[in-house]
Amino acid sequence: MTTMPNVVRNGVDTATLFATLDAVKGDTDLARFQFRATNRWVAGTHNRSTIHGYHGAKQEMTHREPFTFDADHPPVLVGTDKGPTPVEYLLHALAACLTAGIANVAAARGITLTEVSSTVEGDIDLLGILGLSDDVRNGYQQIRVSFVVRGDEPAKLLSVVQQSRRRSAVFDVLTNGVPVSIDVDAG
Amino acid sequence: MTTMPNVVRNGVDTATLFATLDAVKGDTDLARFQFRATNRWVAGTHNRSTIHGYHGAKQEMTHREPFTFDADHPPVLVGTDKGPTPVEYLLHALAACLTAGIANVAAARGITLTEVSSTVEGDIDLLGILGLSDDVRNGYQQIRVSFVVRGDEPAKLLSVVQQSRRRSAVFDVLTNGVPVSIDVDAG
Repeated sequence: MTTMPNVVRNGVDTATLFATLDAVKGDTDLARFQFRATNRWVAGTHNRSTIHGYHGAKQEMTHREPFTFDADHPPVLVGTDKGPTPVEYLLHALAACLTAGIANVAAARGITLTEVSSTVEGDIDLLGILGLSDDVRNGYQQIRVSFVVRGDEPAKLLSVVQQSRRRSAVFDVLTNGVPVSIDVDAG
Repeated sequence: MTTMPNVVRNGVDTATLFATLDAVKGDTDLARFQFRATNRWVAGTHNRSTIHGYHGAKQEMTHREPFTFDADHPPVLVGTDKGPTPVEYLLHALAACLTAGIANVAAARGITLTEVSSTVEGDIDLLGILGLSDDVRNGYQQIRVSFVVRGDEPAKLLSVVQQSRRRSAVFDVLTNGVPVSIDVDAG
């Protein structure tokens, strides 16, 4: 019997991380996940999502509590500013996914991080969603992410970010798109 | 001078909505927006974004308060479950954007809504992000949205959802993708 050193680096339990990878290699069905959100309209552009249950590792699971999030438009877009706009949540999701990946990749490579911070900007021309131009897309025209990463092996940090980008679920979805179906029970 | 009736329907101030459209028609530069999020790594896969300032209508603006959001992985994905996963925020953003659009479109068409609720599911095979298969993408393979919409003109509600989808910024970004650049200050 071999014992792996139970190293926690960057807050990542690397022994558990590698054990999880081994478990999935042995049973790839463990990797099939389904995530979910439910949303309820409140008033105007204000609505609220709840994120709680999901399926993964061949079982139904729940987060430790139901997480709820309000979205709205600001007054300049005829809303009541009860939360960020939906498109701002996309920027948060992108930063969060890349940052989690950076922490995991650095830990797996034995690199200790001291800082990961980022700013994400998305340019959007509302002539699209306002229906005032057919030549302007509805969504962002481009998104820019700027990272500051500090750690004990400075020469290796750029490569860590690159590997995180290569394996980021949100980066993939935002850059490559995904099929979305919409079903409506109207009455 | 003509006075528009100041009708608030579905919580949408339709007079202001139409006045905003007219203002943007008169000066299309008002439609150029830039949204932003800043993110800071906390530990492991846990990190936190702040959404506050944005640019729009030719000026710097801020939400009424800084909104902060935690993201994390659950224990089954070697995280601490301090918040939803980044990919779950994408599902919330999609539901929120479509729902805000439904309320606006219905109001503009004189339809009073009584309920808009939705469930969003995203299927993802983690063999991609775990680096265990080159044939599996990192992100969602498909996303399904199921809406329940109730209002005073049932026969018109499906068309309202369809128009919201046609003008949704998040639906556009998720289905068509967007260029994302990543800049790194590593040291």
